[in-house]
Amino acid sequence: MMSHPSPAAFLDQAAALLGPRGLTTDPERMAAWLTDWRGRYTGRALALASPASTDEVAALVKLCAAHRVPIVPQGGNSGMAGGATPDDTGTAIILSLRRMDAIRSLDATAGMAVCEAGVILQTLHEAAEAAGTRFPLTLGGKGSATIGGLVSTNAGGTQVLRHGTMRAQVLGLEAVLADGSVFDALTPLKKDNRGFDLKQLLIGSEGTLGIVTAATLRLLPAPVGRVTAWVGLGGIVDARSLLRRVERDMGEALEGFEVVPAHCLDAVLAHLPAARAPLQAAHAWNALIECVSASADSAALRDRLETSLAAALAEGLIEDAVIAANDRQAEAFWTLRDSISAAERAIGPAMQHDISVPVEKMPEFILAASPAIESAFPGTQAVAFGHLGDGNVHFHVLAPPGAVRGEWEESHGKAISAQVHDLVTQWGGSISAEHGIGQMKVAELARLHDPVALGLMHAVKRALDPLGLLNPGKLVTVPPAACT
Amino acid sequence: MMSHPSPAAFLDQAAALLGPRGLTTDPERMAAWLTDWRGRYTGRALALASPASTDEVAALVKLCAAHRVPIVPQGGNSGMAGGATPDDTGTAIILSLRRMDAIRSLDATAGMAVCEAGVILQTLHEAAEAAGTRFPLTLGGKGSATIGGLVSTNAGGTQVLRHGTMRAQVLGLEAVLADGSVFDALTPLKKDNRGFDLKQLLIGSEGTLGIVTAATLRLLPAPVGRVTAWVGLGGIVDARSLLRRVERDMGEALEGFEVVPAHCLDAVLAHLPAARAPLQAAHAWNALIECVSASADSAALRDRLETSLAAALAEGLIEDAVIAANDRQAEAFWTLRDSISAAERAIGPAMQHDISVPVEKMPEFILAASPAIESAFPGTQAVAFGHLGDGNVHFHVLAPPGAVRGEWEESHGKAISAQVHDLVTQWGGSISAEHGIGQMKVAELARLHDPVALGLMHAVKRALDPLGLLNPGKLVTVPPAACT
Repeated sequence: MMSHPSPAAFLDQAAALLGPRGLTTDPERMAAWLTDWRGRYTGRALALASPASTDEVAALVKLCAAHRVPIVPQGGNSGMAGGATPDDTGTAIILSLRRMDAIRSLDATAGMAVCEAGVILQTLHEAAEAAGTRFPLTLGGKGSATIGGLVSTNAGGTQVLRHGTMRAQVLGLEAVLADGSVFDALTPLKKDNRGFDLKQLLIGSEGTLGIVTAATLRLLPAPVGRVTAWVGLGGIVDARSLLRRVERDMGEALEGFEVVPAHCLDAVLAHLPAARAPLQAAHAWNALIECVSASADSAALRDRLETSLAAALAEGLIEDAVIAANDRQAEAFWTLRDSISAAERAIGPAMQHDISVPVEKMPEFILAASPAIESAFPGTQAVAFGHLGDGNVHFHVLAPPGAVRGEWEESHGKAISAQVHDLVTQWGGSISAEHGIGQMKVAELARLHDPVALGLMHAVKRALDPLGLLNPGKLVTVPPAACT
Repeated sequence: MMSHPSPAAFLDQAAALLGPRGLTTDPERMAAWLTDWRGRYTGRALALASPASTDEVAALVKLCAAHRVPIVPQGGNSGMAGGATPDDTGTAIILSLRRMDAIRSLDATAGMAVCEAGVILQTLHEAAEAAGTRFPLTLGGKGSATIGGLVSTNAGGTQVLRHGTMRAQVLGLEAVLADGSVFDALTPLKKDNRGFDLKQLLIGSEGTLGIVTAATLRLLPAPVGRVTAWVGLGGIVDARSLLRRVERDMGEALEGFEVVPAHCLDAVLAHLPAARAPLQAAHAWNALIECVSASADSAALRDRLETSLAAALAEGLIEDAVIAANDRQAEAFWTLRDSISAAERAIGPAMQHDISVPVEKMPEFILAASPAIESAFPGTQAVAFGHLGDGNVHFHVLAPPGAVRGEWEESHGKAISAQVHDLVTQWGGSISAEHGIGQMKVAELARLHDPVALGLMHAVKRALDPLGLLNPGKLVTVPPAACT
């Protein structure tokens, strides 16, 4: 091992490399980026670096390697697992990609756009729409989430059922590796069998194997028709049967299938005075269904979905259903769905879990896990809602009435999450369906993940980041390899 | 390094482990598996091992690691690049997966099947069809190609345009790693962000990182309608314009878009006395278009395609077109397409190249590369045909009239292929679109591939196979790591 020069020498060379806009150690300018947006994690940093180009990122990473300075890559700082927040040693730099925000190219005919890591999702949506096309991934944080962060965390969202996660949108990738070399696989080839698909390794690796600087993303034809429905059901098993029926009847037009239990709908209606229940009566479960087509128009989609739901009603599979009369009403349905977390926070403390199991097992999982948790932690209530079509629900455990915010999470949170994660693992599921591991779940991953898979991850991490400088303490924590 | 025990000791323990059906050293029983099906490569082997279960594979690999015996995994032995043929040292064993041919489960409702590595593609097609569903990947070798081989080579075929390569069909994977541990990621989760997607590393790695023992594959709804058309065009640029138009008009129903130049059609018609040209006049280029739908019936598809082609004809984009009147005629169209290679072999020697470039660049590539090759090698003729929709054509260079088979390939083949590969690389393409690297292209990959990508592949190979025992000499050749 070489000796570690002083931070001052590193900072001088970094400043010379990046210029005044590219580097700051000013506590006030750094403050906003040292805490994650949910305020759960706060760290310290040697500096905030904001390179303006891939070459600057590469030169900076080389400099960090020479000085053994850890790097915490950061996009919009809107992650859910603390993956972009440094630890409290103050030895690492934050490498912000936000200045690299160019859409290098957008070709509607070929159906692809080359975006730098700092491009904000909302910006890409607007650019695609202006070109008469569509980028088929969206999520709540679209106003701040960046392409680099979305790729590095393999983000999901509400259109995964049909279009897949970020992994399915990435046609090509550019990244800076731990030694400062540039991996350029931006050119999209529909067929390429020249060995390992290395970009797949970088997607979802949370900046621990390399720093994504740009991506070639697929664009789809703009939607022609859209139809949204709210359905009342007697049970979650019926919801799965309805999912299969609508999949069969609507084919590739089915884009979203979300489930909402009565408790969540009630909480939202209490939380939003202006909101109204879509259906007359209350139902144990609700399903929010959205179908989109680039060929069929809204009237045609509406006819097909009406026929499908009418048959389901006649069979007694569903209790009631309403199809949104217009975009405003469809919007209102989605507002109900998107307000669940906020509505529950208003009621009291809760432990939230982003978990998945095989799609066909999800109803049985919910029916088994909820009472198990509620009996293990008397007074709690377990509620599951979200992306049934993806086998991914947000499993929230609500505190007993009167529990004190902060205290309750502190005293019960860890035990509750551990048991939820144990159950998910027993059911062959994932303790992180879409939010990633970051620093929040790194210990739980080490505790519960398949040792063979963990061993593979360690081997790959050591091979690609032998000095352990890329986002240390996140996702996979291994000592540097013996031989470097 | 430990000392290497004698082969005899290894063979005794392997025989005890696998039993008489599981191991043979009989030259006659091994002979068929020591040469690839095209007869280009022949090797020698210490033994042919045919384990019956994942546990037997794991135990055998542990034994090989202890005795430092190289392993050449083999499925149907129908690869195109010699990837399943051992070298001539006779130190390696062939590990055949053919005895592991169980379809462990098939769930038409959930749309997935768990197949062991030795399941033959045709067998899976029939099982899926019997269950009222469909496995959406097919290719010429379906009668012998196994699931393990198809996964390990990320196989393509004629439906990639819509359904993607094998990578897109793999929902879960089971593999035995270099140390004999079993990586079990068979349970399919639509969303799982627990770090690196390790199964992606094994897909397409040609047995150099692990041995695929089983895979969970996606099944799609059975087709309801199908329509096939043969189109005459004046040029290859028009073919791309037609592709874009049909993509727009047929949407996700477009499943195949193949191009055939006049020379190839003439060769096939001369080669197959019974074959007839689909169109009255000759055209510089022909396109074979197939659309399939699980919802629209054949009549509806036919109407839509007719409207699309009529508009293209009115615009002068195409010269003529015919839609197959029935399955028999559609079959006849495909026979013309599938007989090109055989027809050209009958004419004389040729150098064949399986290459890809970005879809939107393929016409310009063909127009630039063909004359470049023909002028560099006087008397040759360059013909390109195949999957225009995937940016993947088979680029064949035909020998001058009178060239002697064998001699000509020997004297000119290497120089011709090198120049074709140089051109493809200059155009940002791949020297192996779907056939893989195997031993055939390993030197060309080392010569032409991005050094950064090669370095990553070497690092990953060293990390996952430190002893270098998994399919040595194939795809990526690196010395064992310094520290193991």
